[in-house]
Amino acid sequence: MKLRLLGTGNAAQVPVYNCDCTACQRAKAITTYRRGPCSALIECGEQRWLIDSGLTDLAERFPAGSLNGIFQTHYHADHVQGLLHLRWGKGNRLPVLGPQDNEGFADLYRHPGILDFSRQLKPGEIIELGDMQVVALPLIHSKPTLGYLFCAQGKHIAYLTDTVGLPASTITKLKQHPLDLVVLDCSFPPCSDTPRNHNDLNLALETLDHLQPQRSVLTHIGHDFDCWLMQAGNNLPEHVEIGWDNSVYDIN
Amino acid sequence: MKLRLLGTGNAAQVPVYNCDCTACQRAKAITTYRRGPCSALIECGEQRWLIDSGLTDLAERFPAGSLNGIFQTHYHADHVQGLLHLRWGKGNRLPVLGPQDNEGFADLYRHPGILDFSRQLKPGEIIELGDMQVVALPLIHSKPTLGYLFCAQGKHIAYLTDTVGLPASTITKLKQHPLDLVVLDCSFPPCSDTPRNHNDLNLALETLDHLQPQRSVLTHIGHDFDCWLMQAGNNLPEHVEIGWDNSVYDIN
Repeated sequence: MKLRLLGTGNAAQVPVYNCDCTACQRAKAITTYRRGPCSALIECGEQRWLIDSGLTDLAERFPAGSLNGIFQTHYHADHVQGLLHLRWGKGNRLPVLGPQDNEGFADLYRHPGILDFSRQLKPGEIIELGDMQVVALPLIHSKPTLGYLFCAQGKHIAYLTDTVGLPASTITKLKQHPLDLVVLDCSFPPCSDTPRNHNDLNLALETLDHLQPQRSVLTHIGHDFDCWLMQAGNNLPEHVEIGWDNSVYDIN
Repeated sequence: MKLRLLGTGNAAQVPVYNCDCTACQRAKAITTYRRGPCSALIECGEQRWLIDSGLTDLAERFPAGSLNGIFQTHYHADHVQGLLHLRWGKGNRLPVLGPQDNEGFADLYRHPGILDFSRQLKPGEIIELGDMQVVALPLIHSKPTLGYLFCAQGKHIAYLTDTVGLPASTITKLKQHPLDLVVLDCSFPPCSDTPRNHNDLNLALETLDHLQPQRSVLTHIGHDFDCWLMQAGNNLPEHVEIGWDNSVYDIN
């Protein structure tokens, strides 16, 4: 399995519009430090699935036939806005698998175009895609949200955002497997108060302690966390990495 | 006054995703034939206002301070989707003037960030902006929609999309002025049936006959209309032009 992070930013992205903090200045000067809408691509054999669709240039990035479908974690704008345009394409319908959410986003359910939203996943549901198995795992967020565990050839990748902590049931399910890679929401630097809707670094590290993955990557990063990292230097535990747009994780 | 068309496409844009019609092939091969989300920029003295916000790279195009605000014609995705990201910026609030629409788009009213949606315009309302006067004119569409008449130094520009025909009251108001430039919705080639929500070429030309502007530009163009134009050659009346992204109209 191969996972490519396409975007590692929070809703505001990095640089934040009209922000002059050190992280935003750096991202304006050096494009590799930019963070786009949080999303990824998972590939396994013939299977090629987008995880979240917040990038607004999906039509250019993914010519027709290059994707089997889309896993939506949830229907907040920064995770789904790219579908507003993609839906008006031609040809075969593209499956969008996501949580049970009666609202979805804007008028996407009412006017789906080429998108097929008919398959809403139950928590714990298992989807078989060629040699890959995908498990839908409930997360804790302000809208119905699913993380995904991708399993193939005895390897396991968990993609867990947006979330603040994890439900006990999800931790239990994840601990049944050796986790080769966990990609986890960490939007904020360490906070004194319990954060809302997203992990701060404290809660992210605590969650990773529960899961004990081989390798951990933080994503959905806000500019405040980038600033904190620039000041603090890299004092993260050895197995924990900061995610960057276009990083590729080859797990074989 | 100076009007720049930033986008001249319909919701699907040109090229349409996964379409091989002659217009879409041309737009893929030669980028000047591409059509982005329908929008424009009106400038007069110190005033610089965006008309619709469907472009998804507004943060890059318009650094903070470069816009006085935004006139929304209405709240369909292709006319407003760029605000989903722009709102999370820093600094002064950016006024978004638009029609009285309780829904708006997605969660923009609930989480406006730096955007100020407080001023909803009544049909016929007049806004004074420096030396420029702007009149809000009701249009006929599937959501509350306003066209705008921009007046300065005895010159008049009307921007009228999305609409199918025009309300009698709007025609009456527009005919009170000599119209130097009319930019008008023309999404479809000539249709045998009365079109829905948008003008076809027949209805657009009929509307322009009522208004008798000095110069007319068609916008919100779909790929079928582009195909038709490629086949038909330019048989439009002399004062009627096809709009293209980045065309500038200097009306002095």
